[in-house]
Amino acid sequence: MIDKTRLARIALGSVAEPGSKELFQAVQAHGPVEALDRIIRGTGSLGEGVLARLGNGDPWELAARRLEHADRTGMRIVTPEDPEWPPQLEDLKLISREGGDRIARDTFPPQCIWVRGPLTLLAAFERSVAIVGARASTPYGDHIAGDFAFTLAEQGWTVVSGGAFGIDAAAHRGALTAGGVTAAVLACGLDRAYPVAHTGLFDRIADDGLLISEWPPGSMAHKHRFLIRNRVIAALTRGTVMVEASARSGARQTLGRARLLGRRPMVVPGPVTSAMSVGCHEALRVDGFRLVASVAQVLEEVGPIGQLSIPASGPDRLHDALDDLERMLVDALPARGSATAAKLAQIAGVPLRAAAGRLPSLVTRGVLAESEEGYRLPR
Amino acid sequence: MIDKTRLARIALGSVAEPGSKELFQAVQAHGPVEALDRIIRGTGSLGEGVLARLGNGDPWELAARRLEHADRTGMRIVTPEDPEWPPQLEDLKLISREGGDRIARDTFPPQCIWVRGPLTLLAAFERSVAIVGARASTPYGDHIAGDFAFTLAEQGWTVVSGGAFGIDAAAHRGALTAGGVTAAVLACGLDRAYPVAHTGLFDRIADDGLLISEWPPGSMAHKHRFLIRNRVIAALTRGTVMVEASARSGARQTLGRARLLGRRPMVVPGPVTSAMSVGCHEALRVDGFRLVASVAQVLEEVGPIGQLSIPASGPDRLHDALDDLERMLVDALPARGSATAAKLAQIAGVPLRAAAGRLPSLVTRGVLAESEEGYRLPR
Repeated sequence: MIDKTRLARIALGSVAEPGSKELFQAVQAHGPVEALDRIIRGTGSLGEGVLARLGNGDPWELAARRLEHADRTGMRIVTPEDPEWPPQLEDLKLISREGGDRIARDTFPPQCIWVRGPLTLLAAFERSVAIVGARASTPYGDHIAGDFAFTLAEQGWTVVSGGAFGIDAAAHRGALTAGGVTAAVLACGLDRAYPVAHTGLFDRIADDGLLISEWPPGSMAHKHRFLIRNRVIAALTRGTVMVEASARSGARQTLGRARLLGRRPMVVPGPVTSAMSVGCHEALRVDGFRLVASVAQVLEEVGPIGQLSIPASGPDRLHDALDDLERMLVDALPARGSATAAKLAQIAGVPLRAAAGRLPSLVTRGVLAESEEGYRLPR
Repeated sequence: MIDKTRLARIALGSVAEPGSKELFQAVQAHGPVEALDRIIRGTGSLGEGVLARLGNGDPWELAARRLEHADRTGMRIVTPEDPEWPPQLEDLKLISREGGDRIARDTFPPQCIWVRGPLTLLAAFERSVAIVGARASTPYGDHIAGDFAFTLAEQGWTVVSGGAFGIDAAAHRGALTAGGVTAAVLACGLDRAYPVAHTGLFDRIADDGLLISEWPPGSMAHKHRFLIRNRVIAALTRGTVMVEASARSGARQTLGRARLLGRRPMVVPGPVTSAMSVGCHEALRVDGFRLVASVAQVLEEVGPIGQLSIPASGPDRLHDALDDLERMLVDALPARGSATAAKLAQIAGVPLRAAAGRLPSLVTRGVLAESEEGYRLPR
């Protein structure tokens, strides 16, 4: 039997633009199910717009079709009620600004997120850094974004970006090259991958990382949606690094969101002779964001992995915190004795580089022990 | 008859290292003449070092020889009693730090300055900006320093630097190319121009601008002298722009001095891939100096010329404020009618580009009027 709350979330995520303040308040007051019913009955200010989107359809049927479509196309839909929902998204309800435009006001958390990829949102974004910047990047910017992403991914950080041309793509590719985890947060349906030229890149990201969107399949990338989407990139990560930005770049808005959310906004400078560094230098001059010139300086901001505050934990808590990939690896362990990373990857049915990237963290957290023969359960 | 105070200043500037706190306090308490006498008699803590420098010589004779040597070699010696002494140097008595090393403590104003060049210190440094940076600069840094200096000089600002290889030289050359004024503040005697390869550059600077030093002829450039000298660059100018600096650059110390003095410290960023930008980025990250990416942004800091506070003035005050070059140009004017810039330069015996660079400012200040036939006295 399908959970009604879940269906309501999916319907709400389909019939209203993400971030809506009215929608969030209705759900907070009445819960998703009754909020949806009220909206359909035309109670409240959201009614008309939503009904226009819905046409004559029944939102419950729409949600059921969405679920079935997701299953069939290798996506899943994650809602705030799911254990893998990243709690840091809830901070988005704190930064809405009255009196601004819709983008400044409708900053609220998503109702649900469409996902492609083997990792849970919770685990993937726990230690994550965003790298964003110009679409029309220069070789300098591509080099920096790729290099920072490679090193961050190599050190176990998830590299988050928006899947666009230029800096975004360089960041995703850098993380992939390191065999690390990268996540693309899109501003369109996952079946409408934009830009189309990145279809192959998105498939690679979805293989080992995460391809996610607040918009249901079929949604097109519109300009204002990038600005709505940026709040999610800022909220999911511990900090956002801007590498190259023209004078009127949307990336700077992501840094502003990050600061409002208490995350770390960071800016990489460049030659003052480059138009693609104008936005970065303005952000440093005017906004006072933090200059970073190396990955080490990024890690100073977001905290090195060794210093993360891991919740005090007994064995159960430890295992509760595992994501899918980690659970598969732990389940692949023999009851007695050890197994190599390659053996574990084979038994778990995951790529070796994904396994090799995650095992050291499991050892650090005490879930596994390491011996000369490989990995084993701790005594 | 030669002024005894003047001779005492010259002697004091010859027998003790510039910036000395003890020397400054002795002069403040007793005046230059008695301070010198006391020092020779070995009263006070300065005695021994000074006597060692002086050998068996008589300081009054030494000073007279210095004056005569300066006259013979085309230098002049300027002391705080001279009208052209830049009053902003007096701020140097405010930034001494006890408990630091000698460089941090001995920050006091010079006793006198050796000068080559046709301009008064007062006029040349009234609207001045320093551009400093790495000796081992890259083409990027040379380009920026040259470009900034060209534009600043073109707009009537004196470009000040230290005469070193790299950024310093690029700044001086940029100002010269614009036909503007540049001043080199050396850390050695003006006859010991360091580096030797810059002998030709220093001659060009002295032709139309200023070559100055606190050290008497014969003094060698020692490493610690560059750090002592930096305080004068910071104090003379309204702001100091650092263009390229390695991790351990002396230029950063100049910015620190500028900030202590209430001047504007500014930093030009560069590619984070360049070792020559490491010092700049550290200065922005750690010291919090102001990032500047263009000359317009430099002028925002130091104030555009149009907004300078010019003292309220009747005709006498106007003419009192003229420097040598300006007075020569004004004196060259016919009593009736007008003269072209070329004619004025010829009569005054100054380079045409120097004249052409200064005449508009004289018009702005109301000293001259401009007509179709050229320049004339205002009615």
